[in-house]
Amino acid sequence: MTIEEIRPALEAIVGAAHVLSSPDGPRLVVRPGTTDEVSGCLAFANRHSIPVVTLGGLTGLVRGTELFGNVVGISTERLNGVLDFDPLRRQVTVGAGIKLEEVHRFAERHDLRYGVNFGARGSCSIGGNIATNAGGNSVLRFGMTRANIAGLEAVLADGRVLSDLGGLVKNNTGYDLKQLFIGSEGSLGIITKAVLKLSRPSVDTASVLLALDSLDDALAVMSVLELKCGVSLLAMEIMWNRYFKTAGALALRGSPLPLADHHPLYILAQVEGAGNGPSAEDLVLGALEGIDFIPDSALASSQAQQEAFWSIRDGSEYIEASHPTVLSFDVSMRPQDYSTYVAGVEDALSRRLPEAISYYFGHLADGNVHFMIAHDNSIDHADEIIEACVYETLSVYWPSSVSAEHGIGLEKAEHLWRSRSEEEIAVMNAVRKTFDPNGILNPHIQYRSRLD
Amino acid sequence: MTIEEIRPALEAIVGAAHVLSSPDGPRLVVRPGTTDEVSGCLAFANRHSIPVVTLGGLTGLVRGTELFGNVVGISTERLNGVLDFDPLRRQVTVGAGIKLEEVHRFAERHDLRYGVNFGARGSCSIGGNIATNAGGNSVLRFGMTRANIAGLEAVLADGRVLSDLGGLVKNNTGYDLKQLFIGSEGSLGIITKAVLKLSRPSVDTASVLLALDSLDDALAVMSVLELKCGVSLLAMEIMWNRYFKTAGALALRGSPLPLADHHPLYILAQVEGAGNGPSAEDLVLGALEGIDFIPDSALASSQAQQEAFWSIRDGSEYIEASHPTVLSFDVSMRPQDYSTYVAGVEDALSRRLPEAISYYFGHLADGNVHFMIAHDNSIDHADEIIEACVYETLSVYWPSSVSAEHGIGLEKAEHLWRSRSEEEIAVMNAVRKTFDPNGILNPHIQYRSRLD
Repeated sequence: MTIEEIRPALEAIVGAAHVLSSPDGPRLVVRPGTTDEVSGCLAFANRHSIPVVTLGGLTGLVRGTELFGNVVGISTERLNGVLDFDPLRRQVTVGAGIKLEEVHRFAERHDLRYGVNFGARGSCSIGGNIATNAGGNSVLRFGMTRANIAGLEAVLADGRVLSDLGGLVKNNTGYDLKQLFIGSEGSLGIITKAVLKLSRPSVDTASVLLALDSLDDALAVMSVLELKCGVSLLAMEIMWNRYFKTAGALALRGSPLPLADHHPLYILAQVEGAGNGPSAEDLVLGALEGIDFIPDSALASSQAQQEAFWSIRDGSEYIEASHPTVLSFDVSMRPQDYSTYVAGVEDALSRRLPEAISYYFGHLADGNVHFMIAHDNSIDHADEIIEACVYETLSVYWPSSVSAEHGIGLEKAEHLWRSRSEEEIAVMNAVRKTFDPNGILNPHIQYRSRLD
Repeated sequence: MTIEEIRPALEAIVGAAHVLSSPDGPRLVVRPGTTDEVSGCLAFANRHSIPVVTLGGLTGLVRGTELFGNVVGISTERLNGVLDFDPLRRQVTVGAGIKLEEVHRFAERHDLRYGVNFGARGSCSIGGNIATNAGGNSVLRFGMTRANIAGLEAVLADGRVLSDLGGLVKNNTGYDLKQLFIGSEGSLGIITKAVLKLSRPSVDTASVLLALDSLDDALAVMSVLELKCGVSLLAMEIMWNRYFKTAGALALRGSPLPLADHHPLYILAQVEGAGNGPSAEDLVLGALEGIDFIPDSALASSQAQQEAFWSIRDGSEYIEASHPTVLSFDVSMRPQDYSTYVAGVEDALSRRLPEAISYYFGHLADGNVHFMIAHDNSIDHADEIIEACVYETLSVYWPSSVSAEHGIGLEKAEHLWRSRSEEEIAVMNAVRKTFDPNGILNPHIQYRSRLD
C-alpha cells in the first residue's frame, strides 16, 4: 500500500489530527489515544503487512526507533496518564507514554519512590523503559526495569490485547507472558499500560568517593559495602583515572575535584539511611572502618555535595562534546573480569589505533562497563578498528554481553552472536514469528546469528 | 511405540541401571545423569512422539507429575550437584535435581542465604521449584522463585539445549527466555541447571504474634510494618480464628497457646535485625509502638520460641490429618479484598454445605489465602460444592488467581479461565506449540480456555 492509501485508514482510527507526516520522507507517525486505537492501527497494519515501529521518548542509544522506507511510526505519547493507584499495595498503573520523571513526581507526592532512575528521565517513556528493560544507577538496589514491573498490557501484531494489569504478587497460572515483552524492543507487540512497583523513599542518603590503587582493591571494597550495607546500598559506580579527571574537570567547571586526580581508580557509592536505624553517613563510615587500603576518600552528606560528586559520574556528555568522534560502549561481564578485560582493550587499541583515547567508567557491582573511545577522524576505518578491539576482546570472556543496558536496536545486531547462542537466537526468532507472523513489528531490529 | 521398544533405546542413552519400571502399570522412569543424556532422551521421545513428564521431588500439590498411559517419566534426581560457586557475585550453579534444603545448607556453609523457603524443602528439587515458580514464607522479602534465579539451562523438546548460565545482572540482548521456563510446569522443556542468587544471612530475627479484631486492622498493621521495617520484614502471615485455635492446639500438643484463642484474627510477622543497626526485636517493637488497636501480642526472640510460633502457622498438616476429607486452596487477590471474599465463601458454604468446616490462613501481604475446607464424606458431591463456593466467589474479584503458588497441574486446569483471559491462554498455547510442536512435554497439563 502507498502512504496515500494508508493515511486515510489510520485517520479513521485515530482522527486526522493524530496522523502526522514525518518531516523527511514519506513516513507517517500515528498517535493513538487509547489501547483500542493502538489495536485498530496494528490490526490494519497487520492485514496489509505494513511495517510499524513503536516510538516512545526516542532516547534509546542503539537506533532502535529509526523510521525509514514505508514504515509507520506508532507513538505512545498520548497514552500518558496515571490510570490507577493502589497505596496499600504501592502500585501505580500508567499509560506507556508517561515520562519516567512524571512517575518519580507522582511517587514523591505520595511519599513513595519508583526505583528505576537514569539520565534520560525527563524525556524517556515508561513504555520505552520496559521495551528495553532499562537499567540505570540504582540497579544494584532495585534491579533492572523488569524487577519493577507488576503488570503489563500490550497489543499484539494482529490487534489482540494481552492484559495482565492485576498486579498480583502471586499468580502461578501458566506462563508469565509479560516477561517476554520486557526487553523485546517492540518486536512482540506495543506496550500500552504498565503497573509499576513503588517503595518507601529514602530518609537520608550519603555518597562517598573513594580513590583506589587497583581493581582488586575496588572489588574488595565492593564486597565489604555489599555485605555490610546490604539493601541500604543504592549505587556503586566506578571511574577509571582518565574518566574521573576529564569528566570531573568539565562537570565541575574548574572547581577543585573532591579528590586528587592521580589515582588509578575511583568508586562512587551512595547509601541510604535505615530510617529506624543508623543514618546513611554512619552506615557508610561504619562499613568502611578498618579498610586500610583506601588512599583517599571524600564523604558527601548534603544534597549539593552529593550532586557535585554525581555530576562527575554523569559527565560523559561533556567528554562526548570535547572530541570530534566518540564511540560509546555498554558491555557487561563478571566484575572480577574487569581488570584483564580493560587491559586487553587498552592493549589492542595501543597496537591497532594508538591515537584513540579511551574513558572507562561503569556500574561496578552490576558488571557493566560503559566506555567511550574517542578519535579525531584522521584515521580511515577508526570506528571499525575500535569496535573490533572492544568486541573481539570481550568475546574471550564468559559470561559477557555486548549490550548490558541499551538493547540491540540497529547497532548491536551484528554482535548479538557474541552474547547469545545459536539456539537462543533461533528460539528468539521462533517466538517472534509466533507473536508476529507477518513480521510487521520493528522489522529493522533483527536477531541474527553469526551464520546469517 | 510400545514400552518394549522404548526401553532399550532409553537404556542405550542413560544406561540400563537408570531405566526403571514404575511399580503400577507399564510406565518407565529414566534417570539421566547429564544434560546430554536429557537431550538424548528428549530427542528420541520427540522423534517418536512419546509423551514425557518431568519428575522432580514429587512434592507438587496440583498433580502436575502424574504418570499414566504410555508416558515416560524423566527424573532429574541424578542432576543434583553444586556445579559452581561465585562468592563475589554470590551465585551458585546447581543441577536441577538438588534439594532445596541442600542449597540452604550450602549457602549457610558460605555464610550466605538462599531466600526461597517452604515446608517441602527436604524433598522438593530446585528444578521443580523453578518449573512451578514456587513461593513460600519469605516471598515478601525475596520474591517468588523467579526473583531468585540468575541463570538457567533447559533442554527443549527436540533435544536442543538452551543455556543461559552466565548469571549476568545486565544482559539486554533480546528476550529473556529463562523467564518463560519459570512457572511453565515442564511444558516448554526440562530444566537441567540453574544459577541461584544468594544473599547475606540474617544476623538476628524476632517473630511477633498479634491478635486483631478485624481484617481492616490487620491491613493497617501490615502497612505500618511494611513501611517501618521495609526489607527487614521477612514474613507476615495471617491466621483466622479457627485455624489458629486448631493448628495451635495440635502443633503445640496441648501446651498453652502464646495468645488467647478467642480473637478473630492473628498475624505472625518475622523481622530480621539490620546487622549494623537495631536488633530485630527493637525494630519490630519500634514499628508497632503507638498502634493502639492490637488487643494482645506476644514476642519471640529465641530460636525455640520462634519455632513454636511458626509451628502453629505450619500446622496445616495436623488439621488435614484430623478430618476424613480436606480440600486445600491456594488463591490470591488484593489484600484489601480478603475480608469480603472470605465472608463470601463462608456465606456460600453456609447455604450450600453447612456441614463443611473451613480453616483460613495465608500470606497476608502477598494477597495469598490458603484455606482448607473439611467435610466428613457424608454428603454427595461435597467436593464439587466446595470448589464451586470457592471459585465462583473468587471470580467476582479482580484481580484474582486460582493458583497463587502451586501451579495448574491437573487440578486447576478447568479453572484457569477464571484467572487468565482467552487471549492469554491462546498465546500460552501458541508459545507452547512453538517450543514443543509434537506436544510431548507434560501433555496432561493443558491450558484450556472456558470454551474448550
